[in-house]
Amino acid sequence: MRIITVSREFGSGGRELGKRIADILGYDYYDSEIISAVAQKSGFDEAYVETTLDNHGWQDFPVTFGGTMHSSAYMQASKIDLLVRQKKVIEEIAALGKNCVIIGRNADAILKDFHPFSLFVCADTEAKIRRCRARAREDETLTDRELRRKMKEIDKARARTRDFLTGSEWGKCGSYHLTVNTAEWDMKALAAAVAAFAERWFESRE
Amino acid sequence: MRIITVSREFGSGGRELGKRIADILGYDYYDSEIISAVAQKSGFDEAYVETTLDNHGWQDFPVTFGGTMHSSAYMQASKIDLLVRQKKVIEEIAALGKNCVIIGRNADAILKDFHPFSLFVCADTEAKIRRCRARAREDETLTDRELRRKMKEIDKARARTRDFLTGSEWGKCGSYHLTVNTAEWDMKALAAAVAAFAERWFESRE
Repeated sequence: MRIITVSREFGSGGRELGKRIADILGYDYYDSEIISAVAQKSGFDEAYVETTLDNHGWQDFPVTFGGTMHSSAYMQASKIDLLVRQKKVIEEIAALGKNCVIIGRNADAILKDFHPFSLFVCADTEAKIRRCRARAREDETLTDRELRRKMKEIDKARARTRDFLTGSEWGKCGSYHLTVNTAEWDMKALAAAVAAFAERWFESRE
Repeated sequence: MRIITVSREFGSGGRELGKRIADILGYDYYDSEIISAVAQKSGFDEAYVETTLDNHGWQDFPVTFGGTMHSSAYMQASKIDLLVRQKKVIEEIAALGKNCVIIGRNADAILKDFHPFSLFVCADTEAKIRRCRARAREDETLTDRELRRKMKEIDKARARTRDFLTGSEWGKCGSYHLTVNTAEWDMKALAAAVAAFAERWFESRE
């Protein structure tokens, strides 16, 4: 079984790249499917699960959710619960024994016994802003400055979660097998190049 | 013309990887040749040129070379002179118009108008220590702790030189097209994978 995990900077196009790699290689693809499964198993709705798992850290809870000790303690407990469920969902995906691409969720660390090929996807800030703008909904009203701040905050949250759960540094080259910069690539060509690279890695280990 | 530049963490095997990529693709290869050319053109000997260009920063001069204002000012002047000569040597290499691999020396920034494919090579600390040990001369007596410190210092010097000369951050994924981790690879297989990846990048731009 071959597993490719994709970590990425917000706006870098990591999700699209992962989907294209899965299509090229004929692998299963998991992204929001993981959130759906966690939601189903926990009884919470998907938006709540996503917000809780992707939020900007423990310390934000009291602000975001009103700030009584009660609500804060409740939220922390359910975050841990959701992280445990998420880990289980990812392990169940691996247990299917089928080749797959998994986006985010620190799947490379959770599944390290399966020796996944771990990819990190980045781009320079200007390229990420262009990408976000091109894909924005019509009612998107963020200024460039706000968008920059949002990108930074989301990446910071991803880094914090990874550091907390895995002890391996988010975005640092030594934490992944391959790090690609999408800035100067056509996504289709990049996906083909990464897919070929990953296949060579799997072959070299067999 | 296709140029591949290789930046690397000390001990990661970036130089060997670069050489193998050049061999696979039939490209010219430049590494210590650059130091030799700078030495020849400046009249200094190679060891002096290498020490001066690779040293641990301006502020080390007074310590290393005695510390009078005179010697410090002299050394700084000759470092600038050597950097200018080195830049010229790298530009002359590009002017030959032949496909090549260039190791280090911030060649990716110096030659950015030639759109080189820029590679950064890293590995985790333990893998780098194993590599250094395996390649050490017999009289090598550094402890692991000293070796770790040496590795850190050399990388810090490389980072400082890059930041100073290029404004692009050393070792950060967004500064390169591709970042590979040599830790779990056979070098030969990795070189083939990177060579294929680079060729796809060049083709996608033509």
